[in-house]
Amino acid sequence: MDYLGRLGRTRHRLGAARLQALVVSHLPNVRYLCGFTGTAGVLICGPSESVFFTDGRYREQARKEVRGAQIKIRPAKSALASAAEWLGQNNSYARIGIEAAHLSVAERNLLAGVLGKRQRLIEAPPLVDELRMVKERAELPLLREACRVTSQLFRGLIKVIRAGVSEAEVAGEVEFAARQAGAEQMAFPTIIAAGPRSALPHGRASRASIPARGFVVCDFGVILAGYCSDMTRTVHVGKPSVAGRDLYEAVREAQQAALAAVKPGESVGEVDQSARKLLQRRNLAKFFTHSTGHGVGLEIHESPRIAAGQTDELRPGMVITVEPGVYMPGKWGVRIEDTVVVTDSGCEVLTTSPKELIAL
Amino acid sequence: MDYLGRLGRTRHRLGAARLQALVVSHLPNVRYLCGFTGTAGVLICGPSESVFFTDGRYREQARKEVRGAQIKIRPAKSALASAAEWLGQNNSYARIGIEAAHLSVAERNLLAGVLGKRQRLIEAPPLVDELRMVKERAELPLLREACRVTSQLFRGLIKVIRAGVSEAEVAGEVEFAARQAGAEQMAFPTIIAAGPRSALPHGRASRASIPARGFVVCDFGVILAGYCSDMTRTVHVGKPSVAGRDLYEAVREAQQAALAAVKPGESVGEVDQSARKLLQRRNLAKFFTHSTGHGVGLEIHESPRIAAGQTDELRPGMVITVEPGVYMPGKWGVRIEDTVVVTDSGCEVLTTSPKELIAL
Repeated sequence: MDYLGRLGRTRHRLGAARLQALVVSHLPNVRYLCGFTGTAGVLICGPSESVFFTDGRYREQARKEVRGAQIKIRPAKSALASAAEWLGQNNSYARIGIEAAHLSVAERNLLAGVLGKRQRLIEAPPLVDELRMVKERAELPLLREACRVTSQLFRGLIKVIRAGVSEAEVAGEVEFAARQAGAEQMAFPTIIAAGPRSALPHGRASRASIPARGFVVCDFGVILAGYCSDMTRTVHVGKPSVAGRDLYEAVREAQQAALAAVKPGESVGEVDQSARKLLQRRNLAKFFTHSTGHGVGLEIHESPRIAAGQTDELRPGMVITVEPGVYMPGKWGVRIEDTVVVTDSGCEVLTTSPKELIAL
Repeated sequence: MDYLGRLGRTRHRLGAARLQALVVSHLPNVRYLCGFTGTAGVLICGPSESVFFTDGRYREQARKEVRGAQIKIRPAKSALASAAEWLGQNNSYARIGIEAAHLSVAERNLLAGVLGKRQRLIEAPPLVDELRMVKERAELPLLREACRVTSQLFRGLIKVIRAGVSEAEVAGEVEFAARQAGAEQMAFPTIIAAGPRSALPHGRASRASIPARGFVVCDFGVILAGYCSDMTRTVHVGKPSVAGRDLYEAVREAQQAALAAVKPGESVGEVDQSARKLLQRRNLAKFFTHSTGHGVGLEIHESPRIAAGQTDELRPGMVITVEPGVYMPGKWGVRIEDTVVVTDSGCEVLTTSPKELIAL
């Protein structure tokens, strides 16, 4: 990965925001800028130098992974405490940016407590999050591969779904296959929601058994070489009713409409609206209780949000999900989701599992 | 669980901190106080009422789970935005506590932006985190069961560890067995660190193969009915050298010494010191680069921290880990960890897998 280029682009943006340094404390941002994959680290990105702080546990790993930054480790000090101390000793940094969305109030206090009189903490715009929205050429094959593995896992998943098997067992099978395919971990807790539980938009796999007849929402993704994938397919156990087929087709059309709206220059709010409009026609919009999607990359949820009122413009290289759903409490639910990359003229679907209703 | 009792105890502490309400935004704390297990929710705990806020996705789940609090859902508003709006309309709350360790600077701004002139945000002491440190009678069987399953998983794990198998495959097997045993998910990314990788204190299972000879650090835990477990055992593939055996025994003695120090009234700093002292005698203390342990419950890492300089006193019902380790970069590492509950006279080890060096 082009760590030096990323640090350079961040520095450039620092200047534009009239900041002399940025305290990068959000770990995915730290990883993006200097390659560190551990669970404790802070990067200070200054105009002419970058300094990475971690604790004793990560001495060896930092040496192996970190690029483009000096490494500093103080025994028995947290990464943030070390970073704070260093900033306090470098009075030339007067306007110091913090990541307000990712830094806790207590962490902000820790930083503020050691600064000199001329130094100020400024809430920086989401500089690094914005850079990360548009994927670099080297990132796309990794996202593509994570999505390819996910589509492949779906083939195995439909073989284990049947009445009487627990949701957790299905999840266990897909997670085991993911490990065998090289996944570092699942990208989020696997959702297998069967029968009336399909009406829970976030129905994590439970010990409940799959009933003899009904929808099963399967929402899962992997982390492969650091990059996430996200896909939902809804299948049906037993023969679907006419009303069930209609519901499924309505969601499928809404998803298709939203996919068709994804192209450079379109606003993310419009993509959300495209899915909602289709459901509105069938009086189903009130059952679509979440936003249409989100960015995917080093994090499973990252910028941009594909939601009503959001104005980010799509650009080639953005990777987002498109995932409308309809949920009728106590009865049933359907969601269909792809991870897609914005191309020069539209989008390419990376999660290629079939979307015709599968009856098992 | 005794949600009403917990809310009552929180209210009592609010008074002592001269607060009229507490904005509980940390999800494990929300769950602890009112039972909600979803991924988006805020609880406002006031002197005579508690109000829970979530978004449209969790309408049905909130109805099923939340106890002791009114439920409010505003379509198309985040839980925190709804909570902020509600606070702004309730001017009688003047001094409003926030969870400074868990609320981001941006979230604090969102709250502050809608408050009336007489209303102030105050950084509250960690009221709920402190309550959670000492487990209630109903919580202990759940922690016990999570630890029992973990010890059982270890028996399967040592059957799959052998030279040539990848760390990820071993992790996959243990995670699959965990699902079959009813686990909701792993408590943290499984660590299987073999050969020279055993020197990485946080060596997540990688695609690397287990070498013909050397230590394998296995650190894993499950979440069962919401409660976490945490155990590390280090095994050896092939015949251990004399130096290897010595190293292992040094860590085992250090762990034993720390376990012996765990009793009511003892300070957590002393427990940490007990492990360190033993390693100091063998000149190994400089290779013990992390703290000795942490609380375990609804979160895998919670209060208290068992670390140098920490002064929390152990009390019966606290559940903590005891996990000294020694890591020699590029060469090898050993860690031994148990989850234990503090009893009236000492502690009971909940993770009962054997600690003699196992050569595979």
